[in-house]
Amino acid sequence: MDYCFYCADDEKRKSLMIEIIKLDFSTIYLNKDQSHLGRVVVKYNDHKTEYFQLTEEERNGFFKELAIASQAIYNLYKPNKLNYATFGDLVPHIHVHLVPKYKDKLNWGSAFDDSLEKQFLLEADYNKMIAEIKDEIEKLTK
Amino acid sequence: MDYCFYCADDEKRKSLMIEIIKLDFSTIYLNKDQSHLGRVVVKYNDHKTEYFQLTEEERNGFFKELAIASQAIYNLYKPNKLNYATFGDLVPHIHVHLVPKYKDKLNWGSAFDDSLEKQFLLEADYNKMIAEIKDEIEKLTK
Repeated sequence: MDYCFYCADDEKRKSLMIEIIKLDFSTIYLNKDQSHLGRVVVKYNDHKTEYFQLTEEERNGFFKELAIASQAIYNLYKPNKLNYATFGDLVPHIHVHLVPKYKDKLNWGSAFDDSLEKQFLLEADYNKMIAEIKDEIEKLTK
Repeated sequence: MDYCFYCADDEKRKSLMIEIIKLDFSTIYLNKDQSHLGRVVVKYNDHKTEYFQLTEEERNGFFKELAIASQAIYNLYKPNKLNYATFGDLVPHIHVHLVPKYKDKLNWGSAFDDSLEKQFLLEADYNKMIAEIKDEIEKLTK
C-alpha cells in the first residue's frame, strides 16, 4: 500500500487535525482550520478507499457515526446547512469533510474553498471545542 | 416548505440532469454536464435536508444505493477515484454529487469545480450512458 497519512497517523495528519474521539467504525477529528466553525473530519478506521468497498455492516456503521457527528455539530453550532464531502484523489483513505455553513457567511451557496486564508485558533479554544463535541457525541451514542 | 426543484421535478431539475432510475430510497440522475465522465446525482426520494434526519432504515437504504451507484460508475468508466459530495446550501434536499475523477485529467487532486466550462453531449450519447448505467445498477441490485 502507498503511504497514507491517516494510516501512518503521523505529523502530517496531526498538522491538519486533532483527534476528538474514536468510535467503532470511524474517528472524528477537529479540523485545525476553523474558517467554518465546527468543521470536522470523519475518517473510516480501516484503509478502504471507496464506499462500495465496505461491507453492509461497515457501511451502516460508518454512516450512522457520520450522522451522529453531523447531529452533534448541528446541535452545538447551529449551522444553516452541513456540507459532507469525500474527495481523496491524493489521500484516498475514506474520510468525510463535515463542513458547517452559515447563511451569508464564508462560501455560503457555493462549495467550501480550501484555498482561502485559514483560520487557526488558540490551543485553549481547540480544547474547548474538542471537549464539547466529544461530550455531545457521547450523549448521542448512548 | 420552500420551493424545491427536486420535489417540484420541474424544468429547472430537467435542465440539469436526466433521470436514469428510481430505486427504493433514491433516484439516480445523469448530470448533463459531463466534464467528469460518468458524473451522476443520487437524490434522496423524500424531502430531508441533513443525514441525521433519516431513520436508521432510510439511512442504511440510501447509502446502500449510493454505494451501488458508485460501484456501477466505477465498473463502467474506471475512474481513479470517486468524489462524493452533499452541499445543498441553496438546494437542501439531500443529494450526492457522485463525481468520477481521472488521474491527470480535470480537477484531479482538487475539489471538482462547477464554475468551469461545461461539457454537454449529444442526446444519443446521453441515451447510451443512461442505458448502460441503468443496466449496471439493475445487475448490482439483483
